[in-house]
Amino acid sequence: MDLNWYVIVLCIIAAALAYVCFNFLRIRKMPEGTKELSDMAAIIRSGANTFMKTEYKTIVIVVAVLAVVFSLFVEKTSGLTFLFGALMSSCACVLDMRSATYANVRTANRARETLSIGETVKAALCGGSVSGLAVQALGLLGLVAVILIFGEVRHDVSGGGLLTTLDGVNPTIMHITTYSLGCSLVAMFNRVAGGNYTKAADISADILAKVRNDLPEDDSRIPNVIADFIGDNVNDIAGNCSDLLESFVATISAALMIGVVLFQGYEKTFSGDAAALEAMFKSTITYPIMLAGMGLLSCLLGLVYAAVKKMGDDPSRELDLATWLSAGLTVLLGLGGAYFAFGKIDGAVLKDLYGWTAGWTSPWICAVLGIGSGVAIGSITEYYTSTDHKPTRSLAEMAPEGEAFVVTKGDAVGSRSVLLPILLIGISLFVSGKLAGTYGVALASLGMLAFVGATVSIDAFGPIADNAGGLAESCRLAPDVRKITDKLDAVGNTTAAVGKGFAIGSAAFATVSLIVSYVGSYSAEMDLNIASFVVVAGAIIGGALVEYFSAMLTDNTIDSARLMADEGDKQLTPEVLSGKKTPDYNRMIEIAAKEALRKMLVPSVLAMVIPIIGGFVFGVEFVGGLLIGATIVAIPRAIFMGNSGGAFDNAKKYIEAGSLEGYPKGSAAHKAAVTGDTIGDTRKDVVGVALDIFIKTMSTVANTLVSVFRSITLIR
Amino acid sequence: MDLNWYVIVLCIIAAALAYVCFNFLRIRKMPEGTKELSDMAAIIRSGANTFMKTEYKTIVIVVAVLAVVFSLFVEKTSGLTFLFGALMSSCACVLDMRSATYANVRTANRARETLSIGETVKAALCGGSVSGLAVQALGLLGLVAVILIFGEVRHDVSGGGLLTTLDGVNPTIMHITTYSLGCSLVAMFNRVAGGNYTKAADISADILAKVRNDLPEDDSRIPNVIADFIGDNVNDIAGNCSDLLESFVATISAALMIGVVLFQGYEKTFSGDAAALEAMFKSTITYPIMLAGMGLLSCLLGLVYAAVKKMGDDPSRELDLATWLSAGLTVLLGLGGAYFAFGKIDGAVLKDLYGWTAGWTSPWICAVLGIGSGVAIGSITEYYTSTDHKPTRSLAEMAPEGEAFVVTKGDAVGSRSVLLPILLIGISLFVSGKLAGTYGVALASLGMLAFVGATVSIDAFGPIADNAGGLAESCRLAPDVRKITDKLDAVGNTTAAVGKGFAIGSAAFATVSLIVSYVGSYSAEMDLNIASFVVVAGAIIGGALVEYFSAMLTDNTIDSARLMADEGDKQLTPEVLSGKKTPDYNRMIEIAAKEALRKMLVPSVLAMVIPIIGGFVFGVEFVGGLLIGATIVAIPRAIFMGNSGGAFDNAKKYIEAGSLEGYPKGSAAHKAAVTGDTIGDTRKDVVGVALDIFIKTMSTVANTLVSVFRSITLIR
Repeated sequence: MDLNWYVIVLCIIAAALAYVCFNFLRIRKMPEGTKELSDMAAIIRSGANTFMKTEYKTIVIVVAVLAVVFSLFVEKTSGLTFLFGALMSSCACVLDMRSATYANVRTANRARETLSIGETVKAALCGGSVSGLAVQALGLLGLVAVILIFGEVRHDVSGGGLLTTLDGVNPTIMHITTYSLGCSLVAMFNRVAGGNYTKAADISADILAKVRNDLPEDDSRIPNVIADFIGDNVNDIAGNCSDLLESFVATISAALMIGVVLFQGYEKTFSGDAAALEAMFKSTITYPIMLAGMGLLSCLLGLVYAAVKKMGDDPSRELDLATWLSAGLTVLLGLGGAYFAFGKIDGAVLKDLYGWTAGWTSPWICAVLGIGSGVAIGSITEYYTSTDHKPTRSLAEMAPEGEAFVVTKGDAVGSRSVLLPILLIGISLFVSGKLAGTYGVALASLGMLAFVGATVSIDAFGPIADNAGGLAESCRLAPDVRKITDKLDAVGNTTAAVGKGFAIGSAAFATVSLIVSYVGSYSAEMDLNIASFVVVAGAIIGGALVEYFSAMLTDNTIDSARLMADEGDKQLTPEVLSGKKTPDYNRMIEIAAKEALRKMLVPSVLAMVIPIIGGFVFGVEFVGGLLIGATIVAIPRAIFMGNSGGAFDNAKKYIEAGSLEGYPKGSAAHKAAVTGDTIGDTRKDVVGVALDIFIKTMSTVANTLVSVFRSITLIR
Repeated sequence: MDLNWYVIVLCIIAAALAYVCFNFLRIRKMPEGTKELSDMAAIIRSGANTFMKTEYKTIVIVVAVLAVVFSLFVEKTSGLTFLFGALMSSCACVLDMRSATYANVRTANRARETLSIGETVKAALCGGSVSGLAVQALGLLGLVAVILIFGEVRHDVSGGGLLTTLDGVNPTIMHITTYSLGCSLVAMFNRVAGGNYTKAADISADILAKVRNDLPEDDSRIPNVIADFIGDNVNDIAGNCSDLLESFVATISAALMIGVVLFQGYEKTFSGDAAALEAMFKSTITYPIMLAGMGLLSCLLGLVYAAVKKMGDDPSRELDLATWLSAGLTVLLGLGGAYFAFGKIDGAVLKDLYGWTAGWTSPWICAVLGIGSGVAIGSITEYYTSTDHKPTRSLAEMAPEGEAFVVTKGDAVGSRSVLLPILLIGISLFVSGKLAGTYGVALASLGMLAFVGATVSIDAFGPIADNAGGLAESCRLAPDVRKITDKLDAVGNTTAAVGKGFAIGSAAFATVSLIVSYVGSYSAEMDLNIASFVVVAGAIIGGALVEYFSAMLTDNTIDSARLMADEGDKQLTPEVLSGKKTPDYNRMIEIAAKEALRKMLVPSVLAMVIPIIGGFVFGVEFVGGLLIGATIVAIPRAIFMGNSGGAFDNAKKYIEAGSLEGYPKGSAAHKAAVTGDTIGDTRKDVVGVALDIFIKTMSTVANTLVSVFRSITLIR
């Protein structure tokens, strides 16, 4: 493979970024509507921007320290690539959040001006597509830039840090993993801080509105409501975008690492044509980039189609169509890519040595399995969390029996929803392993993330629609406008739930690839023996850490929520309640931000420090166990958290819509459902979404430092 | 080692069983007190017995079918040993439940007659010690009988079923594993049925008393209350005893299997004195039995001491003393046993070949690590669930904020409580592995279970005291009697929570041993590569199955509870409420039993069928992954369920005791705590306790059938 492919990929990236700019400018040009809308939107925008700025002050310090450590002790230039990863991820976040905070008010206004669902959906999707395409384009751009600037991935180089030189450090691999780690770090901070910010605000607003007072849900008299709007952008836009950007980058980097490890293993035994083997190596490390590029192109086309075509009145159908189109095109273009990459490889290498049972199509079939799993997991998530299906309805039907039954049933729905997505992931792993070994596993992961641009776009539609609905409610727009934004909000809830399922599924795939590449990096046989006491001890401890991490995030959230509810109570004076005075929004926003930032550091740093300490003290195998244990526990937990939270949320909405006969809004049954919803808030938006980045960060740190642990271990 | 050791162990068993009979007769001789007490106790006793009889009708069929299958296809006489395991476990359960249903009313009456805490504790402990010693003595007796009748464990034999002969079936090992599987099967049914029975009754009684009506907790006008009393015996006595009997037997059998596997591995490379190697083999398969016998003797002495000495007014101290004494004696006697077994073994075998870094004391140190972990996990559980410490208090302090905060905080407490016990287990595994390899891991597990007689005795004290308190309340005994039974009940709650922690911890150890022996049974290198896609697919699916199993049990429980609450509502007519008419207890007991039995089959059979299907379709490695994944997920989940449930329960009691200033019994805060308690009921007594037997049964089935999977696999 030669440089031409990078040129093609760069062209696709340029086209995608051009479309991003075009959409961004288009949104900015739309009118904001009434002064009240515009003022409220300005508060949200400035609150979100201030938060990000303050957050980045902490992130910059941590990133800078780590960059110096990497350059000094691991590999000379890897500090730079690490910084670059953090930078690209941050750029995507800032751009996405700006676009979302422009789009929310314009979506509300579009509903007000046109009274058309289709037009309103288009406005929200315009904002969403900026997020989605920016994530994929910027993530890939950074990676290609690292390759072009610091050199292509090679199997025969070694290097070291400015101060120390460790055994077996491959600088070309190190550049990729540190780039990925930079993205990972930013995502970790965004998720942990964003979750705390938004849910402390949300829960405290819920309690003030529904428990302590009797006010409408998004009433602007409650200052916590505004903090909640800001939190939606911080967590669901910035957090989610950086999370998926990191999954996308991590899967590509895992595929590249596995390509190198496989070559090094086969090189020793292969006695045939050396040039054929070298050609195979080139192909294995180029195809992941090609596939990612083809995926980006497919998403661009899918989103342009959705923007150009006339929007009907069933927005979820239209959004699904965009996803399916992008996924379908990725499948088609991926096949072409596979032919170019592997079609002419010597059969002795392809089938006999690498053991690809379906010839040159093997990696493509694996990718298709990943793509299919991604789409299917979305549908399963929808089944378990939407009011159209049995699980959420049966949860709503428990509400008349009181809070205890609602929560217990919600736990059951969440646990039950875990099996199908994991069976899909397990079977995809099994089949892709049979087809193309560990490389197949990496390709299945990459397949799932190759059309990430489309999924993130649809996902980002959710918080924009949610914010638009909130703005419409708090600025008291006309009922027929509210009807449209409510419809959008309901669709947004489903896309958000589907997006969470996708994020967790893709994280599962990505982490498995990372673990495989981690094991390959220290063991030529790629063997991590779980029947060894070192590994099994690591694995059960890894599982326990997931629970501990969940506990920390949960405790932090309810502590902050209590504080903010008390502050809100103080501000809800008779004057504020009568509408004569606006509450002190800024003070509430400040508290939310301060709390989130104060509580972000310990859990985030923990995820990085644990594998490092584990590696230095107990060695590479222990860390391998740690990673696998954490992953095996975190995947079902994250799905449980997301789906039980989603089902709680929608069961409440089901009752509010009057669908549970005899139990209207305000009844005891409704109150029980509200309790479920509040419990679900922490689960789905704080813990569930943070677990996936927790395991990815641990795995990426381990991959970066594997050569260090290999050289230095306290207890052998 | 020679036959003499079996004689010594048999003598210890005989002594223990003699003490069991003595105590059983002593309890029966105690007076039952008033007619009301006696009548109520008779209802409980007959309800429990009827339930067991009906349950065993189903169990007998399943056991018989499996026994035939084993004899036909796996190994000729293993059907018999399988039946024998089920029989011994059933005998222990029946005996224990009889003793508990005699002891409950006599404990209440003893409080009434003596008004002395010490005397009352002694009566309850007398019943408890029957349970504990019967479990350990009968479990061990059966195992020794299997060895004496069907032959000692050997490394050089092979056999087959009546119809087929598979490769690598060792009949002596097969006898042990099928014996263990028989115990496992009974435990599985007991746990699943018992959990459903007791918690459906408990939750429905709670709702009727506290939510739908305003009645005292254990009011005998509510028919569900009586079903709950019966359920306590079914689940906390029969379920718990069979569960720990199976853990105890499974760890011994895992140690024996590992002994064989190690010998077979070392035999190939060892070039020294063959007789020395053979002597080592004999010792490795005798020491587990010796240690178990020493443990039984220690428990007997500890419990006799507790029965003889004057009981003070601080029952929990006295009970702790009995445990510590038993544990301490086990440590001492275990050292002597290790010297006899390994003291004279050739150093070339002991240190150089087997790699025991601390010489003949190595397995003993491992056992001590297990014993220490067992005691420590008990204390950690107490810390997280008792009202004397911060976690449960901080949970109670959340109650004024409402249900959502209570549940979220309870989730956080549960998740946080997972880390320390698992760190202990992990570190014990690591250190014992370093000391004596996989045999060390098995010995650590066995150490934890070697004093199971004492822990089960103390644990069984709980439901007896609970029942006694319930009888005192429902028969309206005098307030000063109730004060004593309340005190006992509070202590019983803690011992039950500690017992749960111990059950889970020991199951974790047992399962790890079983997995290691499983891997050793098909791979000479004892290697299960978790970085292989087959294993990793199995592992994540195994984890998901744990969630699915939890969901099934939870759904079953709340469905039954709803049904029983509705029936209770029907029965609570004005006449019943005014005390003019007794409710129809029998109808309620019938419903509880019918529901529990109807819902028992699917989850129980699932645990057996999953590894079988997995093995036939995807092979031994997939099943290995399945087991490890299920274990890694189930351990933290079970600890979470037990501890969050325990903390909810005690936080409610804390508020009821008036310890939360400004929030008395009956306040909104108290109601929120009651909601937490009801949610915790299903968690701690249905799901948490069933998860450990779920993973043990899966592992034991896999161990039994490993030679079958090895020969027949659909997808290679």
